[in-house]
Amino acid sequence: MFNKICIIGLGLIGSSLARNIKGQSLAGFLSCVDLNPKVCEKAMELSLVDQATTSFSVGVEDADLIILCSPVGSMSVVASAIADYLKPGAIVTDVGSVKGSVVRDLQQHLPESVELVPGHPIAGTEHSGPEAGFAELFRERWVILTPLPSTDLRAVDKVSALWGACGARIEIMDYKRHDLVLGITSHLPHLIAYSIVDTANDLEDETRSEVIKFSASGFRGFTRIAASDPVMWRDVFLNNQEAVLEILGRFTEDLSALQKAIRKGDGDYLFNVFTRTRDIRRKIVELGPEGLPSPERKGKD
Amino acid sequence: MFNKICIIGLGLIGSSLARNIKGQSLAGFLSCVDLNPKVCEKAMELSLVDQATTSFSVGVEDADLIILCSPVGSMSVVASAIADYLKPGAIVTDVGSVKGSVVRDLQQHLPESVELVPGHPIAGTEHSGPEAGFAELFRERWVILTPLPSTDLRAVDKVSALWGACGARIEIMDYKRHDLVLGITSHLPHLIAYSIVDTANDLEDETRSEVIKFSASGFRGFTRIAASDPVMWRDVFLNNQEAVLEILGRFTEDLSALQKAIRKGDGDYLFNVFTRTRDIRRKIVELGPEGLPSPERKGKD
Repeated sequence: MFNKICIIGLGLIGSSLARNIKGQSLAGFLSCVDLNPKVCEKAMELSLVDQATTSFSVGVEDADLIILCSPVGSMSVVASAIADYLKPGAIVTDVGSVKGSVVRDLQQHLPESVELVPGHPIAGTEHSGPEAGFAELFRERWVILTPLPSTDLRAVDKVSALWGACGARIEIMDYKRHDLVLGITSHLPHLIAYSIVDTANDLEDETRSEVIKFSASGFRGFTRIAASDPVMWRDVFLNNQEAVLEILGRFTEDLSALQKAIRKGDGDYLFNVFTRTRDIRRKIVELGPEGLPSPERKGKD
Repeated sequence: MFNKICIIGLGLIGSSLARNIKGQSLAGFLSCVDLNPKVCEKAMELSLVDQATTSFSVGVEDADLIILCSPVGSMSVVASAIADYLKPGAIVTDVGSVKGSVVRDLQQHLPESVELVPGHPIAGTEHSGPEAGFAELFRERWVILTPLPSTDLRAVDKVSALWGACGARIEIMDYKRHDLVLGITSHLPHLIAYSIVDTANDLEDETRSEVIKFSASGFRGFTRIAASDPVMWRDVFLNNQEAVLEILGRFTEDLSALQKAIRKGDGDYLFNVFTRTRDIRRKIVELGPEGLPSPERKGKD
């Protein structure tokens, strides 16, 4: 499919991609760049790649496809580090959870001779690092690509074909729309989960022990989400600031209304909210099991 | 174990208990009272009980154990409806998610000749009704009993034995402490899940469709919780008002601090919160798979 692919950043997503590329021979040669030498060692030890290096110039040399899998906040630095070594006609894609800031950062540094196909696989677990990856991570999951009007459609097709080989389904979307929709479905839920677990963390020791013991009553699911990679999520919130603050404002309004209803003992208001929320659930369940969060599918919890 | 047990309210929990009691012959005779004649019909059709009736006096007559499985808000009405028909020495227990209001409501109406053993199984799914129940619902799950200082310990032992036969583990706790701990682990998570799904419900049609489509990125888990029984949860919030408002206040403070950090671009603050929340997750995972939320264990989602 490609002569040489270079993955930059070998965490959960990068190493899962590597497992697919190596396992299915989707590239003649697979290199990875990671600034952490231990990650490079681990990548070679696990035979995830043909070459692991801490040098951007060595890694991207002659690559037809470069996949940026480092945190969203690092895109600007990475783009400027690789810009001078990219082969003309090479395709650059990424897996960042925010697309607006990535488009801005990459456009600023990459030469016009490369094709940019921003992307985001809706897949992940709460585990991080090269050992946490697995080939099935993307199976029947959505990958959203947000090409620019100037992007060559053949480049979009090639990136789509790679994800297709990983078992994923492709959706093409405007990057601004991506950031709004994911702000609601992903970024806000993560922020809330981090927040409620932090609230529990502040309790006195005895109460906290009981909270941990009886977590199965709802809290446990939040702790799974709140165990996600801190650097990745810090960068998501710093780079999708506008959409997250907008949707957080709406959420806070709705929560305040529920709070007021509890304080005033307004059972009708509570009942009405708790009833209409079932409608969205029904539609999601109708969409079928492919919507399942990957940690459940993996049964790892 | 008992000559006659009467279950009042045959929903998810009541019908799951009935399946255990009938399946293991834990009672010589099992009756149920449900004010909905269709539920009574269904109970007989599914052979969940020996007798299903809409009459409190018929159902509780001669029963050694009465298990109240109706919503927390109905406890006062139910207690006054059964008070005159209870056999002296009978044990009354319940499965309500709030214990303070239940203790208050039951003590007000029940005669002194019966033993009160308030209880709460930490088990459930987002599905409701007699057909949603299953015998394994309580297996390796906690049941918290909150007996009063005046409760006969033999009555506590008998109720514990019943839950033990269902595969549950018993914890004895003060009812005030129960309401605080469950306020954090269960009531607040449910309130937040209802709220975020309601926020999404308010979006314009196109965005809402995309939110449903890409729900696997975190939102989907919230919709499962927010599909729980509306009457049950309305009553929880109306009856554990004080603890819920207290913990909601703390949560709102913590969320505001995160909001401010996002607005100011304070990455260090975000990173620190997102790192310390991992500690609670680690402790929960160490406790083992018995802590898994039941819908995951049931694999129904």
